[in-house]
Amino acid sequence: MAVYTEVADDELESFVAGYDIGDVLSIKGIAEGVENSNYLLHTRAGYFILTLYERRVNEADLPFFLGLLEHLSGHGVTCPQPVNNRKGRALGRLAGKPAVIVTFLDGVSARRPDARHCGMVGEALGKLHKAGAAFPLARENTLSINGWPALFRSAEARADDVLPGLAVTIAEEISRLQNAWPKGLPAGIIHADLFPDNVFFLAGKLSGLIDFYFACNDFLAYDLAICLNAWCFEPDASFNITKGMALINGYARERPLVDMEIAALPTLARGAALRFLLTRLVDWLNRQEGALVKPKDPIEYLKKLRFHQQAESARDYGLLR
Amino acid sequence: MAVYTEVADDELESFVAGYDIGDVLSIKGIAEGVENSNYLLHTRAGYFILTLYERRVNEADLPFFLGLLEHLSGHGVTCPQPVNNRKGRALGRLAGKPAVIVTFLDGVSARRPDARHCGMVGEALGKLHKAGAAFPLARENTLSINGWPALFRSAEARADDVLPGLAVTIAEEISRLQNAWPKGLPAGIIHADLFPDNVFFLAGKLSGLIDFYFACNDFLAYDLAICLNAWCFEPDASFNITKGMALINGYARERPLVDMEIAALPTLARGAALRFLLTRLVDWLNRQEGALVKPKDPIEYLKKLRFHQQAESARDYGLLR
Repeated sequence: MAVYTEVADDELESFVAGYDIGDVLSIKGIAEGVENSNYLLHTRAGYFILTLYERRVNEADLPFFLGLLEHLSGHGVTCPQPVNNRKGRALGRLAGKPAVIVTFLDGVSARRPDARHCGMVGEALGKLHKAGAAFPLARENTLSINGWPALFRSAEARADDVLPGLAVTIAEEISRLQNAWPKGLPAGIIHADLFPDNVFFLAGKLSGLIDFYFACNDFLAYDLAICLNAWCFEPDASFNITKGMALINGYARERPLVDMEIAALPTLARGAALRFLLTRLVDWLNRQEGALVKPKDPIEYLKKLRFHQQAESARDYGLLR
Repeated sequence: MAVYTEVADDELESFVAGYDIGDVLSIKGIAEGVENSNYLLHTRAGYFILTLYERRVNEADLPFFLGLLEHLSGHGVTCPQPVNNRKGRALGRLAGKPAVIVTFLDGVSARRPDARHCGMVGEALGKLHKAGAAFPLARENTLSINGWPALFRSAEARADDVLPGLAVTIAEEISRLQNAWPKGLPAGIIHADLFPDNVFFLAGKLSGLIDFYFACNDFLAYDLAICLNAWCFEPDASFNITKGMALINGYARERPLVDMEIAALPTLARGAALRFLLTRLVDWLNRQEGALVKPKDPIEYLKKLRFHQQAESARDYGLLR
């Protein structure tokens, strides 16, 4: 949940007057996104999301994110679409911060995803990867294998406070993945954070994808590995192979996996689990008592990592070949 | 800002199916209200606010609050109107909490209210008091003069940590007000928290009032005194008599003040300042480091109290007689 900036009504009105969307009827801060302030904006033209970019987002990345949303919208992916102002620009400034207005997307996140949801997410991910192919901008994935050592160093000294032995486990895993990490897999634009919160469903169908602020260029199958972690484990951290099969098959219907990707899947899944273990660990160690935003439990991802460590092939994730 | 409870999509869908408002299209937690969890709910029938009552609200008070909103809506006050479910009841249960759906109100709060806003608020307050006259339920004002000693006791020991001498100032003020508090003024339903956040404007007109969760029975002029505190001071804590005049005149156009109320106005304004000084002081002393909900500065209300202490008559607030 996040609303870090209060926007004055007169400032808001003059900002919105720069767009062709009619007068402001209502604005409500919404509890979505932890990196930005988000508001639901009602104008004569309808409902929109107004986002103010707070300091955790690098301004230099905004043309990539906004361009990507526009590109994907134009290529059949239902995602928030930036609204251009009268000067033809998506990026403006409000309350001293970079600000954009995007279209409002209906839909509800699945709190307890089942195999049908997983199948639809796999399919949407495959479509997203195909739609991203022609996108001309690029952004490095700072949270992939090259970024893990630095993340780990910032948490290493206190990692064992969370669980004894955690520091050694992570150090060994990083070193193993550095040796085993695949090379030359098909790469392109990935969402990199396609968790259930970021996928909307409506009347039993997937209705849209949101929150592209981790999107970047990386191996496409790594995005699938992130989804295996995010969608296919049960609350007790056991892997549900029916969900895994649905996710992978859904994906492959849109974009068949090549042999190299299939072979690399267990390694990519380990890497994805480690990535969320690391960022959650850092957030956990830097949490503030009483803060409304509860950091997510890093140990959930240690348990997922343990599963991946014993997986031998893509068959362990439900792939039937 | 507040969303304390996560609502599962399937639970939400079956809850909403109990109403005649169509399928759920979207739900977003909104940063409004500190006592409850609030969500903007989009269904086939339109936009609504879904409120889950958290533990700070006394369940026994809910029939009063919901009945009042319904009563006021039916008597010309634009405020959120509870939506009855198919069983004809406004109060339901969701995620283990009492829950209601109310109509969505357009409008934007004035962050920097001017005298015109004050005039419109005064008028709306007068209308509210007239509309509340026939409401059959009652609720004691636990935050008025009888409640202050207990509030003070909970903060007394650490009050001087906030400002040296504060404990004595408050003790003296309570004792003075206990002697001077008026008796027998016109009484009825008051809003009791009509701050700028709780008043919406649209196209230069007042468009609605929200957040009736402090509403209760008390002297009507005490509500006006609360508004003098909430609307007519400048950021530097100086009283703006033009705004005061606009507020009082706006009110009197709807409901002329009687002589006793005019005579009591400085005392009521002192009481109102003390009430917010006390509750803010308690919240301040119990604040949690790093919490997203920043407690409001109690000293702002000490400064307002100082102004009221030197006021001699209603003329000091802009009343011209």
